[in-house]
Amino acid sequence: MNNKFWSDRIKDATPYVPGEQPQDKRYIKLNTNESPYPPAPAVYDALRHFDAEKLRLYPDPQQSELRTALAELFDLHKENVFVGNGSDEVLAFCFQAFFETGSEALPVLTPELGYSFYPVYADFFDVNLEKIPLNEDLSVALTDYNRPSRAVILANPNAPTALFLNNQEIEVLLKQKPDRLLIVDEAYVDFAPESAVGLLNTYDNLLIVQTFSKSRALAGLRLGYALGHPDLISALEIVRDSINSYPVDRLAQSLALASLGEGRYFAENCARIVRTREKLKEDLAKLSVECTDSQANFLWMKVPGFSGEKIYRSLKEQGILIRYFSQPALRDYVRVTIGSEEEMSQFLHAFAKLIQD
Amino acid sequence: MNNKFWSDRIKDATPYVPGEQPQDKRYIKLNTNESPYPPAPAVYDALRHFDAEKLRLYPDPQQSELRTALAELFDLHKENVFVGNGSDEVLAFCFQAFFETGSEALPVLTPELGYSFYPVYADFFDVNLEKIPLNEDLSVALTDYNRPSRAVILANPNAPTALFLNNQEIEVLLKQKPDRLLIVDEAYVDFAPESAVGLLNTYDNLLIVQTFSKSRALAGLRLGYALGHPDLISALEIVRDSINSYPVDRLAQSLALASLGEGRYFAENCARIVRTREKLKEDLAKLSVECTDSQANFLWMKVPGFSGEKIYRSLKEQGILIRYFSQPALRDYVRVTIGSEEEMSQFLHAFAKLIQD
Repeated sequence: MNNKFWSDRIKDATPYVPGEQPQDKRYIKLNTNESPYPPAPAVYDALRHFDAEKLRLYPDPQQSELRTALAELFDLHKENVFVGNGSDEVLAFCFQAFFETGSEALPVLTPELGYSFYPVYADFFDVNLEKIPLNEDLSVALTDYNRPSRAVILANPNAPTALFLNNQEIEVLLKQKPDRLLIVDEAYVDFAPESAVGLLNTYDNLLIVQTFSKSRALAGLRLGYALGHPDLISALEIVRDSINSYPVDRLAQSLALASLGEGRYFAENCARIVRTREKLKEDLAKLSVECTDSQANFLWMKVPGFSGEKIYRSLKEQGILIRYFSQPALRDYVRVTIGSEEEMSQFLHAFAKLIQD
Repeated sequence: MNNKFWSDRIKDATPYVPGEQPQDKRYIKLNTNESPYPPAPAVYDALRHFDAEKLRLYPDPQQSELRTALAELFDLHKENVFVGNGSDEVLAFCFQAFFETGSEALPVLTPELGYSFYPVYADFFDVNLEKIPLNEDLSVALTDYNRPSRAVILANPNAPTALFLNNQEIEVLLKQKPDRLLIVDEAYVDFAPESAVGLLNTYDNLLIVQTFSKSRALAGLRLGYALGHPDLISALEIVRDSINSYPVDRLAQSLALASLGEGRYFAENCARIVRTREKLKEDLAKLSVECTDSQANFLWMKVPGFSGEKIYRSLKEQGILIRYFSQPALRDYVRVTIGSEEEMSQFLHAFAKLIQD
């Protein structure tokens, strides 16, 4: 590769590697935490009735309708809502909006095991990210965050451990340092007991990031959002308007809006996925598989004697895709998305056979 | 505004201000260089036949089908093509992929009057952007670019001057410094005599950026792309994968692909807009309006005795939106998008009345 035109910034970069999106054949796809259920019926309707002529014009850069609907859903104001092209973009904007650059800056704290995009952002944006070890049971070691720091960022439920901090625990982090920003990445929260959204009225140092990709079955549409104090939202808007004024296209705005109207469909699908998850946990316990107490739409498990890669390869041959990671701390585990009941029983069958052979 | 959580980077930022996208009423909208004609019929079909169930899954992060189709259109390979969320995002990625940071870095050269997002990127990404004055006739002063520099970035046709450099002139810049990258932002090239794409086989220091927003009437869909040597494309992919692995959603990929199949519709609409533009130039000449020899889908004009803002305000009252800029060098001008024949005759009527009153 001839990189004479490359900036130093990217010569050193180690980009994020997303899960496979195979185009070759149809797998039971349990590798990227997508929903096994289709988007809400109103999304189909909105798509069918969308007038393509409108695509001629730029989208509303303020995304007013969509932000207003999100605000209503969470009992907030439009000024508390920022919408971006997937929660990954929103998180990347957070790194630029709130964190200082350079190794001398006060560190941003994050759990040692967490969403693997955070260290990528930190390297790319030159943010001093300090990884705090987890407790032995893989839970977040709350008291260890009581140290000099600019911000804390964590996923809750955490990825890939799938473990959850309740609002009382989140408040420990918020109260430790009221002048420190806490960013809670709630990509999986709709499968957990509660969201920290209710804390926004009490704490101005809290920013919550959510997504339409998992519980709303719209990963293909690219929509994420942040909820927080208007001054935090303004910061994200400055970043966006320094990069790309319109990251959320007209169709995405319109279909996401339709999705928000379908509260019952949404709740039922989330509940179904939670039931399937709990059933799978029980079945795996019978097989003596070690599995964390997931509150997300995926399980994080290990089987003594089997590397994650080995399990991955064997299941892929049988048409089932799951995710493994090659980093030393993760290589004994696999992450398995909760699919439909039928998919999980096929997974369980193949998995049991593999580990009992 | 309480900005205690803001990074220094955004405290100093002066974000880009996009043109108005009014939601209050229907204007004759000549302010953001959108197409007056609808997207190609195949886009309507692709929308109607798109299966919303697919939105459940993440998009193809490689955008293989769309990149292959773009490559075929330009007689290139898929590896020569990068696709992003609008050409603004692609340009922002260019600033990060190719330009060094800090005031000591070799400068990136750009015409003094050019796309107003470039200085925003430069400030935000801490790039040493050096503005080269235009010739007195507002054309790009080619020989002045023969100085120590890391890269050159320019829009061609230029915005807001609407003036065009042909390939012989582009080659002057390419040959001046073969180890200097030239980024040509061809957002408006489909209304001009030729694209520099034909030069890509000869020069590895050329990167071309184009968009679906103007000539393909898909501003609302957010699609831009870069064409160049695979090593340049790889650099853009590293930036993308350090920020957001999937900035181009499934619907955007599918509808853009459909648009590419409609070569004749595309060519006819471009030709129509060019004819309308040439007719308007003649009509304005009769009114003694000073207007550059636009090769884009907009005109850049001034009327002695009228500030841009004054013209803007007066036309807005009559339901016609155009664009003015408040910077001293630009404040005597207005930028007027070429709309349909009917829209331009309404514009001309109102404009003539205004300046002759």
